[in-house]
Amino acid sequence: MLLHGYYRSSAAYRVRIALNLKGISVKHVAHHLRKGEHRAPSYLKLNPQGLLPALETDDGHVLTQSLAIIEWLDEIYPETPLLPRTAYGRAECRAFSLAIAAEIHAVQNLKVLNRLKAMGHSEADAQAWAHDVIAEGLVACEALLANQAGTFCFGDRPTLADICLVPQLYNARRFKVDLTSMPKLLASEAACLAMPAFADAAPERQADAE
Amino acid sequence: MLLHGYYRSSAAYRVRIALNLKGISVKHVAHHLRKGEHRAPSYLKLNPQGLLPALETDDGHVLTQSLAIIEWLDEIYPETPLLPRTAYGRAECRAFSLAIAAEIHAVQNLKVLNRLKAMGHSEADAQAWAHDVIAEGLVACEALLANQAGTFCFGDRPTLADICLVPQLYNARRFKVDLTSMPKLLASEAACLAMPAFADAAPERQADAE
Repeated sequence: MLLHGYYRSSAAYRVRIALNLKGISVKHVAHHLRKGEHRAPSYLKLNPQGLLPALETDDGHVLTQSLAIIEWLDEIYPETPLLPRTAYGRAECRAFSLAIAAEIHAVQNLKVLNRLKAMGHSEADAQAWAHDVIAEGLVACEALLANQAGTFCFGDRPTLADICLVPQLYNARRFKVDLTSMPKLLASEAACLAMPAFADAAPERQADAE
Repeated sequence: MLLHGYYRSSAAYRVRIALNLKGISVKHVAHHLRKGEHRAPSYLKLNPQGLLPALETDDGHVLTQSLAIIEWLDEIYPETPLLPRTAYGRAECRAFSLAIAAEIHAVQNLKVLNRLKAMGHSEADAQAWAHDVIAEGLVACEALLANQAGTFCFGDRPTLADICLVPQLYNARRFKVDLTSMPKLLASEAACLAMPAFADAAPERQADAE
């Protein structure tokens, strides 16, 4: 399989972690987001949204949207499950994941920050927007873990929730968000980063890292 | 079960459709978004993100995030499935749903528009932002259906994709988005709106509609 990604894309980072946890090796194809390579006609033909990542399967399917790709991986390669065992557990885990992917990341990604700049806002305004969206969103995520007591976000093995959390905390630090009031998030992150599957997926370890 | 919602919330509208398709009746509790009732301490205790909707189950679980709620409903009440039968089909359907829920709706909802206004933007600026986010996002969604030939978004019965599409098109019209270049989206919507499960979930049919 081919993973079309970008080293610093949170969504591509999520899929890299999931592939590593499953022990699946793929070929990586880098598209430079800041240089607009994801808007090249050849890539738009593959993925009309022009978003990264996209997973090209061996039989020619092109899967998009990181959470949908990860759910597919979990269905097709059920070993090392990425969702909790109970239906309530899965609902909580998916809700936490969407609280990051939709409520935080989708509102602070490069596309949205570029939209703000196109309205006349400065780089500092865009940075402040990203900072505030991430800070407020992560406070809510910390609250979502209030009743959880496992090593990871939901239990004693990493799930989709941790796969979303780690790239978002990486992003939070880029935008200088104060994380000291988020002990549960930080504890889950520390447990994850001790695992090669997470560590090897980090942006700075990718071939296209700058 | 209790569904905490608001008549015009796209996310609550999605859950209403899913419940209707499954034939599940719940008690509806309205929280007025524009009056800030979703920020009341009693509601924040139930749902720390302060987002609508939330589904309170009979044994006291509180489920949040519309897509996670709908996946849970589909697992617990498997009759009238809301996802396609094949893994590739589910991946495409979930990707389309996220292309609406995360890439469009999360970037144009009331919270984001209020954030723009807090930066000094006018109501007209906020409306233009919402218009552009919806218009660009729906063009990508239309492209995602290019190879689909069914009555609905993905096949001959409504799925999660249609459940996300119908409220987003309702929203598109509020923001005066020109939909004429989106025949596949409009055809799926028309098929949905002919079904009571969709028609009865419409904002104007809710008890809290203004």
